[in-house]
Amino acid sequence: MPRPALLKGNAVIGQSGGPTAVINESLVGVVEGIRQRLVARGAVKKVYGMRHGVNGLVKNEIVDLTRLRPSVLNGIARTPSAALGSSRDKPDRDYCNAILNACSTHNIRYFFYIGGNDSSDTCRIVSELAAEAGYDLCSIHVPKTVDNDLLENDHTPGYPSAARFVATAFMADGLDNASLPGIKINVVMGRHAGFLTAASALAREASPQRKRRGSGGIGYQGETGPHLIYLPEVPFDSERFIADVEAVYSRIGRCQIAVSEGIQDSGGRPIAATLVESLERDPHGNIQLSGVSALGDALANLVKKRIRTSTGKAPRVRADTFGYLQRCWPDRSPVDAREARAAGKFAAALAAQGERCASVALVRAKGRAYKAAFKRIDVSAIAAKTRHMPPEFIDGHNNVTQAFIDYCRPLVGPLPVMTRL
Amino acid sequence: MPRPALLKGNAVIGQSGGPTAVINESLVGVVEGIRQRLVARGAVKKVYGMRHGVNGLVKNEIVDLTRLRPSVLNGIARTPSAALGSSRDKPDRDYCNAILNACSTHNIRYFFYIGGNDSSDTCRIVSELAAEAGYDLCSIHVPKTVDNDLLENDHTPGYPSAARFVATAFMADGLDNASLPGIKINVVMGRHAGFLTAASALAREASPQRKRRGSGGIGYQGETGPHLIYLPEVPFDSERFIADVEAVYSRIGRCQIAVSEGIQDSGGRPIAATLVESLERDPHGNIQLSGVSALGDALANLVKKRIRTSTGKAPRVRADTFGYLQRCWPDRSPVDAREARAAGKFAAALAAQGERCASVALVRAKGRAYKAAFKRIDVSAIAAKTRHMPPEFIDGHNNVTQAFIDYCRPLVGPLPVMTRL
Repeated sequence: MPRPALLKGNAVIGQSGGPTAVINESLVGVVEGIRQRLVARGAVKKVYGMRHGVNGLVKNEIVDLTRLRPSVLNGIARTPSAALGSSRDKPDRDYCNAILNACSTHNIRYFFYIGGNDSSDTCRIVSELAAEAGYDLCSIHVPKTVDNDLLENDHTPGYPSAARFVATAFMADGLDNASLPGIKINVVMGRHAGFLTAASALAREASPQRKRRGSGGIGYQGETGPHLIYLPEVPFDSERFIADVEAVYSRIGRCQIAVSEGIQDSGGRPIAATLVESLERDPHGNIQLSGVSALGDALANLVKKRIRTSTGKAPRVRADTFGYLQRCWPDRSPVDAREARAAGKFAAALAAQGERCASVALVRAKGRAYKAAFKRIDVSAIAAKTRHMPPEFIDGHNNVTQAFIDYCRPLVGPLPVMTRL
Repeated sequence: MPRPALLKGNAVIGQSGGPTAVINESLVGVVEGIRQRLVARGAVKKVYGMRHGVNGLVKNEIVDLTRLRPSVLNGIARTPSAALGSSRDKPDRDYCNAILNACSTHNIRYFFYIGGNDSSDTCRIVSELAAEAGYDLCSIHVPKTVDNDLLENDHTPGYPSAARFVATAFMADGLDNASLPGIKINVVMGRHAGFLTAASALAREASPQRKRRGSGGIGYQGETGPHLIYLPEVPFDSERFIADVEAVYSRIGRCQIAVSEGIQDSGGRPIAATLVESLERDPHGNIQLSGVSALGDALANLVKKRIRTSTGKAPRVRADTFGYLQRCWPDRSPVDAREARAAGKFAAALAAQGERCASVALVRAKGRAYKAAFKRIDVSAIAAKTRHMPPEFIDGHNNVTQAFIDYCRPLVGPLPVMTRL
């Protein structure tokens, strides 16, 4: 097949949305891919980075990445959080016109944007405006999100490392809770999708005690937590929650609970909003769920009021909200680090094949051994859409299925081994 | 020197108070020490473990550790949290009489208790009651606490691993905060002593940007956080806090803040109590500070109300409370793991030297290279007393000194390397 004629000019790369532990792997993957496939063929001269996403691009805050040495690139790749800086801006058409103007100013012909579904939407709008204006531009989206909520993807770079943190945290916290028994609530990130909260179930798997796994909607019956898992996909009912906790607590004298920050009632109202008064909305109009701990404390207070020990006392109840450490902890999943880098390289390869607007999707090859591959998808397939936990991953109203555990286990890498007496 | 005549009977070991990442190293160290020095000499027959501290001992809930295989012992040593279970009980004389009765029932002549200053007090009372009753007993305390608040010790096993978690968390969270700039408050464990909160300063040291370190009370002036550190030893003033945050925020557009859960005003009232209404007291009459996140949220709300960006908007403000992960995270300090094991062995060695009542203290050898040693101390030297950050570790009202960093750095082991653009 003849090689396509390539656009000639410069390239720019940006990072958007909540950072992850491996978003810099994707940045470096794009840089490496551009060097190999576009700079080497004379199509690209300069490789720029946007400071704080498209916000920096329109303000002319860009850095030259063209000559960064491999040792520096590898150092950056290993470092969590967005090295270029990130942005929460969600550009409309006017904003995207400003982006296009900035591209024109710097003769940028390759626009790479690493982010979630909002970022893929930016790629789509910028590409449409460029076509309308007759400006030749290649606009490629690279997937990233700890929430794992992009359609078309088996999973999203960033999720496995966050899932690894959550699983490790539940293992260690479960032992702490067994040492000083009580009811422990841990609030996990994930506004609309429960994948990260569900990853807490790997803490059971990694334990030597892996018997009596729940199935068929009767809930998890083992000794090793989490004993209860509440996802945003399943309507949350406070009365049923109290009954669940009471059942576990009366059986084993303690209870470890995974709660998504995004749990909502049957009317779609966030529990954080119904239980807590003062909430803040972000620039997208969403209620702020991360960076406040009110949901965990409110649930703990509810349990303290309602549940009693066999001697009539209030049980020991504690709540932790794992917060931002979930997305930046440096002990990354090796699988995630590798895939995030490869996703960036694949994006550059799409550009070198003459693509004008596309996203990269991570798919899983069929077979017993875990194997991932990449494919090209339309940005419109994921732009501004949210993927949820599928029904086959959800077991009743407070657990996940073995199918979810089989899905998630290969992603997170080896978990620490913990020995019980 | 002739070997002392040894008491003959059985031994028991217990774990008490908040678990740590290395408290099982000390457990295994005591078991190994007893085997080497007391079982081998025919002084000890059975080695028991108390389930949930002295609470299990008086309820006859004990386990036989005599024949545990080395592979199992090593697995337990590597596992965070108290493998035997822990207890918050603070025994009085009546309770200690019940402990002594249990010792008599099982012909226990060696009583080892791993814990903080309350546990050393238990060792003291049990030893005194035994002497009064004419019951020959050896009672040895093994130090443990993430708070690092035991007198006579350079530092306490458990602290270095918790400090490692805090330093790593501030490094990673600092990059997250640089990606999406704002004001970030992180609440760190430590009711009365600021050592763990102070360890956040290692996040600056581990970064490539280590210039412009604060000194002489003018506060820290570098780019890499934490920019402000608030310790329980320094009276906290809300107005001064707002001025501090405003100064950093107006200079660099973001601010990472380390706050001890135990900060108090000049009258000794916990800020958590003055800012927050609903607080719970633990069985010792202390206000519950861990396992609730109200302090961080209250401080964040204060900042949101009072500070404005240059364009008059409320800045991005977030708070995380690190919670129980600080004391159970499995990525331990190698120094801490080694010393915790050695502390347990040293305790058994004291018993084998004929000691009747003592504690183990960890001291640091003078010299450039870090080197620790153990010595015997009276339990009364630490029992029910609290060590605070010494003045030479505190820089002004919102920072720590280089002397503290030099003290803490060798304890935590190698921190992850993070590269900035």
